[in-house]
Amino acid sequence: MTTISSFVCGRWQTGSGDRRSLHDPSTEAVLGHVHTGGVDLAAALAFARDTGIKALAALGWRQRGELLKALASKLHEHRDELIGISGSNGGNTRGDAKFDLDGMTGTLAAYGNLAATLPDGPLLLDGDGSQLGRTPRFWGRHVLVARPGVAVHVNAFNFPGWGMGEKMACALLAGVPVIEKPGTPSALLAHRIAQLVVDSGLLPPGAFQFVAGSVSPLLDLLGPMDCVAFTGSSATGTIIRGNKNLVRNSVRVNIEADSINAAVLAPDVDFGGDTFAQFVANVATDITQKAGQKCTAVRRIVVPDDRLGDVAEALLERLRATKVGNPDDGDVRMGPVASAEALATVRAGMQQLLAVGEALLGGPQPIADKGYFVAPTLLRARDAGAEVLHALEVFGPCATLIGYAGKAADAAALVNRGGGGLVASLYSDDRAFLDVAVPALAPWHGRIWIGSEKTQGQALGPGAVLPQCVHGGPGRAGGGEELGGLRGLSFYLQRTAVQGDRALIGRVCGEPSTQAGSP
Amino acid sequence: MTTISSFVCGRWQTGSGDRRSLHDPSTEAVLGHVHTGGVDLAAALAFARDTGIKALAALGWRQRGELLKALASKLHEHRDELIGISGSNGGNTRGDAKFDLDGMTGTLAAYGNLAATLPDGPLLLDGDGSQLGRTPRFWGRHVLVARPGVAVHVNAFNFPGWGMGEKMACALLAGVPVIEKPGTPSALLAHRIAQLVVDSGLLPPGAFQFVAGSVSPLLDLLGPMDCVAFTGSSATGTIIRGNKNLVRNSVRVNIEADSINAAVLAPDVDFGGDTFAQFVANVATDITQKAGQKCTAVRRIVVPDDRLGDVAEALLERLRATKVGNPDDGDVRMGPVASAEALATVRAGMQQLLAVGEALLGGPQPIADKGYFVAPTLLRARDAGAEVLHALEVFGPCATLIGYAGKAADAAALVNRGGGGLVASLYSDDRAFLDVAVPALAPWHGRIWIGSEKTQGQALGPGAVLPQCVHGGPGRAGGGEELGGLRGLSFYLQRTAVQGDRALIGRVCGEPSTQAGSP
Repeated sequence: MTTISSFVCGRWQTGSGDRRSLHDPSTEAVLGHVHTGGVDLAAALAFARDTGIKALAALGWRQRGELLKALASKLHEHRDELIGISGSNGGNTRGDAKFDLDGMTGTLAAYGNLAATLPDGPLLLDGDGSQLGRTPRFWGRHVLVARPGVAVHVNAFNFPGWGMGEKMACALLAGVPVIEKPGTPSALLAHRIAQLVVDSGLLPPGAFQFVAGSVSPLLDLLGPMDCVAFTGSSATGTIIRGNKNLVRNSVRVNIEADSINAAVLAPDVDFGGDTFAQFVANVATDITQKAGQKCTAVRRIVVPDDRLGDVAEALLERLRATKVGNPDDGDVRMGPVASAEALATVRAGMQQLLAVGEALLGGPQPIADKGYFVAPTLLRARDAGAEVLHALEVFGPCATLIGYAGKAADAAALVNRGGGGLVASLYSDDRAFLDVAVPALAPWHGRIWIGSEKTQGQALGPGAVLPQCVHGGPGRAGGGEELGGLRGLSFYLQRTAVQGDRALIGRVCGEPSTQAGSP
Repeated sequence: MTTISSFVCGRWQTGSGDRRSLHDPSTEAVLGHVHTGGVDLAAALAFARDTGIKALAALGWRQRGELLKALASKLHEHRDELIGISGSNGGNTRGDAKFDLDGMTGTLAAYGNLAATLPDGPLLLDGDGSQLGRTPRFWGRHVLVARPGVAVHVNAFNFPGWGMGEKMACALLAGVPVIEKPGTPSALLAHRIAQLVVDSGLLPPGAFQFVAGSVSPLLDLLGPMDCVAFTGSSATGTIIRGNKNLVRNSVRVNIEADSINAAVLAPDVDFGGDTFAQFVANVATDITQKAGQKCTAVRRIVVPDDRLGDVAEALLERLRATKVGNPDDGDVRMGPVASAEALATVRAGMQQLLAVGEALLGGPQPIADKGYFVAPTLLRARDAGAEVLHALEVFGPCATLIGYAGKAADAAALVNRGGGGLVASLYSDDRAFLDVAVPALAPWHGRIWIGSEKTQGQALGPGAVLPQCVHGGPGRAGGGEELGGLRGLSFYLQRTAVQGDRALIGRVCGEPSTQAGSP
């Protein structure tokens, strides 16, 4: 039995106040506790500000990159131990656990590698310069510089490894100290990762703090250089973004929230071909992987009306073959959802969807006496336009087949009714279909994934969030943007225009050709 | 006597409800009225959505750019008429009026010219692509696409021409229809500009609407693809950003607000040299130009302690020579502030500053029987650390001399106490001073302007906002970002990652090398 502690001001501390239990979602056994209060958040913030900022700034971009790579290696050494905790505290199969943990180390390493291209000085050049006066002597250029503030990361329960890792990677490379708050249901895994980060001794004092419990009071203490990155529900995201202190101080807030992601099958895709095979495999994976608890998982399967039967048959074959149970059993391919609350919410959501459709497989009914299990569930919508289909994210192993007449513009309009999403996937080898669908979907999505014959065997599915591409989406998805290579750093950086004598500002901004040794 | 009307849903309409008078700030004569209500804002929004978005999208980037250039020419044809209105309704000298109006046409034309580099299709490429899978076949790249929403622009009273023009330029080039709300005290000029825009017939239906009166109710109607760009006080900015509907729908909000801009003189600058001359000229201009009603104007003059006397003497000589009065008189070099409210606020602010300093010239006392006149005012702080110096923007012809010991780090720390600003100017030819000051100031400022010997005669002063460089600042300044060349479009665009077969997504995203005629 573990009581989750917090690492603040350079030492581990146990909280106080209300206590929440952490469970094995397969057995409902209590594995540990977390206190919601008792951590001196003002002291944590001061420690990050007074100690962490300077320590990170002193390292420079490339050395911080080296630390990220070393951290990735160190965490990878403990992969098997972490997979075990991911199974017991998260209900994750071995595959699900690796998806989270390898995502974490891979993203940390990717940002570590990006750093090799960065300069010695504190300023990153942004774009080309431009002439501002009558002659080229008066010149302007833009630089990016670390904001001397603190990053508060409010992480989701579904990816305790990857979620924390991707946020940390960007902030720490930018030179901004982090305060990480884990999602409570899976806090045991996050806690163990935090212990490994601390024990590695790699990060300088104040660069990394870990608060198990509420960080709400911290939001009232942040200033103009600080930032908050949140992943979770739209409802909580709205509360954070509306926080009076954050609004008043122009504190940057990034939100990744609900997303009713869609997969669209184009009419050109033949039943037997590679494109169709990817479509079925990816949709089935999204329904069952992590028991559907992925912010990028497909919730709406948008298929030409006359293909609904074929698609249903192919998906049902896959889903029926998915063994559900305690991931301790090696044959199991789908575990439980993460908590009793999650189970209740998923069941209630399925009931809402059933009001406008029918279950072809699964549904909200209990499938086990113990544990937060729910069946892989495939629904078919009676009315493609029903509001709830496009507005309710059921965060579990559940997706709904929705028909459309076969035109790209109609499919895009249906998908866009989601009000802003993280990812839309398109399966087509028809350039004309894509030429309509991509520009129509793009404004409403952070990412568009295109499956075609040539991507067979080459591509990670649309559910994978890669460090090279942005993650986030407009509207309901929170309007945020993370990752995307160096773009992921910009949330932690200030862009500043520098204007003056061209040669002088070139030297001050660290233009390579103006440094010592060059004319 | 004019009653300012609104142009919505394709026709001019007079509002109703509460009526506010517009004055000649030199004579206090009533020139016109504006009604705060009575415009059907929901209908205006629907018109922009249903008509404006499609019409602008149909044009494409380059044709929209051509329209901006044509609009700039058309408005420039009416320059003299507009200068006249700027004098009577804004109290602007001819020079002040040109600063606003040429800024407007120059920025419209600059964005028109930028469009020549943009593609035929709807997608702008963003950065390079990257390999996402085991082979280069699975590829990712980022595109920018117009968000099919409406831009609500809430403009400030001080730049009725430039402010509206720079916001319009970016939105319209991006393909987003605008609803422009002018600052009330100078709405006569904005209204005339709007008439010229409408009468030009250049913009397609729904692309441009003009609402004289409150747009607050509009904020409750906006959705995920819409956006609000506001220039004005921090207090109003905070209300807008905190609006529940905007928060809930992740509506993008850009705010340009208070900024206690600073000019820093470095110890290396000799009294008689070119750098010193620029420093004095620019600071004096910022105090007197537009009677100090520029968001970029210097409010804090940060000078080595042992140079305070020299600097005061040089500035006083300039300020004493500035003739204040009705700009109808051609000898006048500084007009009144814009309204009775502005005058009262400026006087009250000066009183607050006088609690921690002394007036070397001017002050809050009345200098005329009629009109909203205030004297050019130079204060000297008794205590460089006094909070009010760094927190209160007195939006009039007033700046305060503040001493520092001569070290770059100390000057930067003092300036950064402003809590985030639009621009800091530095006057130095000492690389060592700049190497410390620039990186220290950069995170807290949207722009740094460096005056050195070589910029003499070459440079517009730090008060000028140029389309090539970003305008905005963190924290108190609102956390916004406008302009900066194509960067200025990004507020109106969605960035989307497109993933798939490299050749296929290259064609769909409009990579030049993949278009018809290439292999």
